[in-house]
Amino acid sequence: MAAEQLVEVWRGDILECTHAGHAVVCNAAGEIVESWGDPDTVILPRSSAKMLQALSWVETGAADRAGLTDAHLAVACASHEGEAIHTDLVRRWLGDLGMSEGDLRCGVQSPWNRDLRNEMIREDAPLCQIHNNCSGKHAGFLTAMGTFGGDAEYTEVDHPVQQAVKANFEEVTELASPGFGVDGCSAPNYATTVKGMAHAMAKFANASEDGDARERGMARLTRAMASHPALVAGTGRACTELMEAAGGRIALKFGAEANYVAILPEQGLGISLKITDGATRGCEAVIAALLVRLGVLEADHPAVQKRMNVPMFSRRGIPAGRVVPVAGLR
Amino acid sequence: MAAEQLVEVWRGDILECTHAGHAVVCNAAGEIVESWGDPDTVILPRSSAKMLQALSWVETGAADRAGLTDAHLAVACASHEGEAIHTDLVRRWLGDLGMSEGDLRCGVQSPWNRDLRNEMIREDAPLCQIHNNCSGKHAGFLTAMGTFGGDAEYTEVDHPVQQAVKANFEEVTELASPGFGVDGCSAPNYATTVKGMAHAMAKFANASEDGDARERGMARLTRAMASHPALVAGTGRACTELMEAAGGRIALKFGAEANYVAILPEQGLGISLKITDGATRGCEAVIAALLVRLGVLEADHPAVQKRMNVPMFSRRGIPAGRVVPVAGLR
Repeated sequence: MAAEQLVEVWRGDILECTHAGHAVVCNAAGEIVESWGDPDTVILPRSSAKMLQALSWVETGAADRAGLTDAHLAVACASHEGEAIHTDLVRRWLGDLGMSEGDLRCGVQSPWNRDLRNEMIREDAPLCQIHNNCSGKHAGFLTAMGTFGGDAEYTEVDHPVQQAVKANFEEVTELASPGFGVDGCSAPNYATTVKGMAHAMAKFANASEDGDARERGMARLTRAMASHPALVAGTGRACTELMEAAGGRIALKFGAEANYVAILPEQGLGISLKITDGATRGCEAVIAALLVRLGVLEADHPAVQKRMNVPMFSRRGIPAGRVVPVAGLR
Repeated sequence: MAAEQLVEVWRGDILECTHAGHAVVCNAAGEIVESWGDPDTVILPRSSAKMLQALSWVETGAADRAGLTDAHLAVACASHEGEAIHTDLVRRWLGDLGMSEGDLRCGVQSPWNRDLRNEMIREDAPLCQIHNNCSGKHAGFLTAMGTFGGDAEYTEVDHPVQQAVKANFEEVTELASPGFGVDGCSAPNYATTVKGMAHAMAKFANASEDGDARERGMARLTRAMASHPALVAGTGRACTELMEAAGGRIALKFGAEANYVAILPEQGLGISLKITDGATRGCEAVIAALLVRLGVLEADHPAVQKRMNVPMFSRRGIPAGRVVPVAGLR
């Protein structure tokens, strides 16, 4: 089944661009509540799978053994801006493990936060791996080595940590992964379908803090993300602002190349979506629209309007156009 | 007619993203030689129309009256990186007009060239309109006021300069423009079809230096662009590197939101293409593929490979994937 047109980019009265994609709203039984495009489309969920990657070790009790707080778990699921709240936490975490920045295998990255990036340019500050948006996930992988073992090269696909991630990922998505890609942070990223991800997110949404080890891990990760929106992304970012707008009731996660997932505990639903062309503006417009559609957020909330009705301006500030979901999603 | 899938983004063995669009190869009689998607799709050509915007005043003889060289005309058609070769020329041009940076209406922009941008951040250098990638086009508009008149607000849609641009644009594309959008530089950008742009580019390709005023203007602008690749874009950019690879035989122009046009004098053909989602990586892959297909460039030329077989790496430099045109275009 083909991708469905989901987002329009208007400049004046001219439809300048469109974004097509696939989206699934699913319950914990794996039943599709509503969908657009093809639910069986294979995707690399990229960073939208970070709570699944964390679950593999959290459900073993490794988080408790390491004395981790919800803040640690939130940054383990983050694609963060490299702000001080993120980097201080990751640096402390590494220290508590008796490790340091050099033990990470995520690679160096200039912080996404522009003010901070410019400050580092001004000060000629060296780039470091802790600023990598995935450094929390990697601190989690290093923590997981205490349980799963393996050598220092924990991003290798045959490393016990990544094999544990894969097994867990396939069990929770209830699909054999058709393959993997190397993510921006060098870790394997396992493929699944849009429906597989939505189903997994619905399980997170329905997990009980009193359930089995996996359920408790899911519930704890959901709570960690939902209650620490600023740690999951950062200043001005969609995940952070939309979770803040929801007041701790939901967990959201963006992934590179226009993936987005949502965990909606009150509705007992999970969402997964992928814009085929990889455009961030597209997936942000759709996730905001679906959260309004499902009654999670009000359409007129500023954080929602910022994604569902995105104004574009000329460099002199003259209104030039808008990014909006298609009429059926508005 | 629907857009056609033209570009694939692979990560490992997984097809992670696709880009669809419309492309037309046309001759000067307006006959379609080959096309993909729907030739009648309405587009805002954005900066890919800069040689048409310049033609409106060049064909009046204004360039000769102002003593402009081919370098001036190349930068008038440019979306430049804000490098010294661009900004020095525009600053000198404004001075020769008895004007200065404050007469521009393109707005300030941080230079696209990263090294230069970082240098300006380090030195806390103030942003200025001359660094705007469209400053050459705007120096052209100021020059055009000598012929068409009008007040200082030359980016207003009812300004004589923009009215002249519109009339010329409709004549050369042989289509009434169905509307306009406000471009990033605040000037009106007139809509046409993919075929309309390809037809216009084919007229440029066939224009004679001995023809009428319009033909001479087209031939001169083509020559100016083709012989000054570095002025039309800048270091590392697709237009510059592909024109350099062609050794002055062709003129190319990118436009925001994934427009691309080509003027091919030896073949007597014009190309216009638009990737529906606005992705730069998509339109660059397609224009490179079409230039190879038409025998203009060799597939194994490094400048071509850089766009037709774009490697993606993790932040530690591990190969992660590739951007490639679809099999039919390779």
